[in-house]
Amino acid sequence: MKELDLIKVIKEQIGDKYIGDDCAYLEDLGIVISQDSLVEDIHFKSEWCSPYQLGYKSVAVNVSDILASGAEPAYITIALSLPKDISEDFVAEFYSGAKQALCGAKIVGGDITGADKVFISVATIGKTAGRRISSRSAAKSGYKVIVASNCLEKIGKSSKGLKELINGGRNMDLIRANLEPELDVQLSRDISEHINDDYAMMDTSDGLADALYKIAEASKVSIDSEYIDGIFGAEDYILVAAVPEKFLKQVNGYTIIGEVLEKQDYVIKIGDKKYKSYDELNLFNHFGGDDE
Amino acid sequence: MKELDLIKVIKEQIGDKYIGDDCAYLEDLGIVISQDSLVEDIHFKSEWCSPYQLGYKSVAVNVSDILASGAEPAYITIALSLPKDISEDFVAEFYSGAKQALCGAKIVGGDITGADKVFISVATIGKTAGRRISSRSAAKSGYKVIVASNCLEKIGKSSKGLKELINGGRNMDLIRANLEPELDVQLSRDISEHINDDYAMMDTSDGLADALYKIAEASKVSIDSEYIDGIFGAEDYILVAAVPEKFLKQVNGYTIIGEVLEKQDYVIKIGDKKYKSYDELNLFNHFGGDDE
Repeated sequence: MKELDLIKVIKEQIGDKYIGDDCAYLEDLGIVISQDSLVEDIHFKSEWCSPYQLGYKSVAVNVSDILASGAEPAYITIALSLPKDISEDFVAEFYSGAKQALCGAKIVGGDITGADKVFISVATIGKTAGRRISSRSAAKSGYKVIVASNCLEKIGKSSKGLKELINGGRNMDLIRANLEPELDVQLSRDISEHINDDYAMMDTSDGLADALYKIAEASKVSIDSEYIDGIFGAEDYILVAAVPEKFLKQVNGYTIIGEVLEKQDYVIKIGDKKYKSYDELNLFNHFGGDDE
Repeated sequence: MKELDLIKVIKEQIGDKYIGDDCAYLEDLGIVISQDSLVEDIHFKSEWCSPYQLGYKSVAVNVSDILASGAEPAYITIALSLPKDISEDFVAEFYSGAKQALCGAKIVGGDITGADKVFISVATIGKTAGRRISSRSAAKSGYKVIVASNCLEKIGKSSKGLKELINGGRNMDLIRANLEPELDVQLSRDISEHINDDYAMMDTSDGLADALYKIAEASKVSIDSEYIDGIFGAEDYILVAAVPEKFLKQVNGYTIIGEVLEKQDYVIKIGDKKYKSYDELNLFNHFGGDDE
């Protein structure tokens, strides 16, 4: 089964009020919450990463969701399930790495249990006070699509790093882009603290093309983007936002990579190529890779 | 390695301000948060429980932590990691069961990924508005230890249900006590909405004796309890609270099962037997059972 089919089943069970964005926005509490799991041999291989890197990435992928919402990373719980023979050093190094990815949040609890393989699930809470929260369905015709300028060179690096790991390569710059992604704290804050209109923002956990597609689809618009090398590569964890053109005067250090149009006969256009369905993007499927 | 040793390592890494209770109390946000994982073949066997029961129990064990804090269950995220060959029906039934254990909370998100075995991690947020939050270190000499009267008959039933499952028995009353524990919503609210003093409250996820020991140890007091059949059995998920005697006039439907004393030469006394160390209780170790 595919991830998207299962999400449909879940929506049927619990409704879709909160399902859609990577964070749930709980307005009455002034928070957003996100939860993500990393499973050994699905999301990572133990021989490819140190416990430090595993801790870093487990927290980073969650904090990235909070940053994409525009909220301020605040509190984190970590549930670790570990094989019996794992050492105290593993746990100490894991937490040492986790602490480097907090972006201001605090680790406040969690759970530790046994398991056959390493299973990590992290829940992160962001504060929304003083910030406007994004929604992937908030892009409007005329909006500009931006990324932080210093992120342009990162696009596609993580997936190249993954190839290095798979092929036994040793380009540490690329490998580090995959295992220790730097997060886009500045752009998140610059936008959410100052913008006065609804806006869309996502991280590129599944790739920049994926994020553009999901924003366009959820917002019932089309997005035209220039072709950027690496645009289909996953796990860069940079932020991409669709914001009103007038807002661009209030933010620095961004690059425009596309624009939002009224709904066309395609969802996104990258360079000259039009994509009418998600399947055409032919991206990595998180639910185990290549299954049907 | 034992769970308690690993928790020590984690405390060294992140400090112990929030570690100690089953929920972290985030006062600035007016919430508590708890996260717990259930791992196939560690916490459950798939052949012993339906997807419905698995969904129920995954949520119930988390909501129980929120109730033990005295907060109001509010929002839940569920991260499910599932083998590729699992059906849509499994997910639909899992959520159907999960919805029966919400105690007023809403499921607002989560994550779904692949895995070799079923891994479930649930994070639950409780609201603290209008409620006084418990701490296991808040029991004081002279306090009375209470459980809800209608819970007395439940003590030890869950562990008997687990034995039925292990031995292929069919006493569905006992088995249901293990797989679909009823939660103590009423006592939690009755205490937390009306009490004016600090108090200790825990659920009996690891057994009533375990809860009494942990409260006594964290509060630097001793607790004397009558001997109750089943007091060492885990996973009943009833609440046990240590509250000032004067407060008992304000609450109904409770039974006193013990009292808090100044620190003695033991941590807890159950019937005539004194327990000076946690090891003497000889309880089930969650980190895989019988390892060292």
